[in-house]
Amino acid sequence: MEQRLSLVTLGVRDLNSARAFYESLGWEAYRESNEHICFFQTGCMVIGLYPLPDLLTDQGRPEARPVAGGITLGINVVAREDVDRELAKVLEKGATLLTPAADTPWGGRTAYFADPEGHPWEITWAPMFPLGANGALILP
Amino acid sequence: MEQRLSLVTLGVRDLNSARAFYESLGWEAYRESNEHICFFQTGCMVIGLYPLPDLLTDQGRPEARPVAGGITLGINVVAREDVDRELAKVLEKGATLLTPAADTPWGGRTAYFADPEGHPWEITWAPMFPLGANGALILP
Repeated sequence: MEQRLSLVTLGVRDLNSARAFYESLGWEAYRESNEHICFFQTGCMVIGLYPLPDLLTDQGRPEARPVAGGITLGINVVAREDVDRELAKVLEKGATLLTPAADTPWGGRTAYFADPEGHPWEITWAPMFPLGANGALILP
Repeated sequence: MEQRLSLVTLGVRDLNSARAFYESLGWEAYRESNEHICFFQTGCMVIGLYPLPDLLTDQGRPEARPVAGGITLGINVVAREDVDRELAKVLEKGATLLTPAADTPWGGRTAYFADPEGHPWEITWAPMFPLGANGALILP
């Protein structure tokens, strides 16, 4: 299997409100998104929002009862102060604070929030990993 | 918050065996990976493996008991027969079958497996979404 990731699909209980949250951050949904699924182009890959029961049925385990949080979604930002600023913005739009912005032992700064469906996100400034073209995170 | 995804960090119970599984698929770990964390460059972003208790502590909710599966990780392949071939390969390396390869109502073909930590993956051939340079998934 190639060393790639094409799509991250987040199971959601309320597709409309989950979509509205990401749109409120300034994200633009793929024009063919509809009431059954919503896609966002994110660099070389795509984030999808999809009703959790449908996601579990597609996974072949409709009886599963997943609890969000075994995965962290991360977005790296260019400057230290972006962590605080972006965190303030997402909280204003209805995200839940998990941890306030704080310096890390490895010399960066992070903050954690959960989207309205409970999926945890990390906003990170990692000066040892400067962002490449179009915000790509390329390990040095 | 920009419309990007930099890092997907998978919480794992056994970092060594989780890393060994992805390496057995032919993935190459970032050279500065160590016994505390492992990174894989995946196109414009990165997948990390990180012990689940540490991940939850970083998320500010060490008491959480997440159950894998509210998110599907997807890899899109170039040809219909790649779905079956890649599925066979990952099963040989210790993945768990969730659903066998099957044609979908929307004209593609998919199969689902779980990695050794229970994180579900989808292998997809989606002919309406041809892959771009370096395997990027760019919505048309």
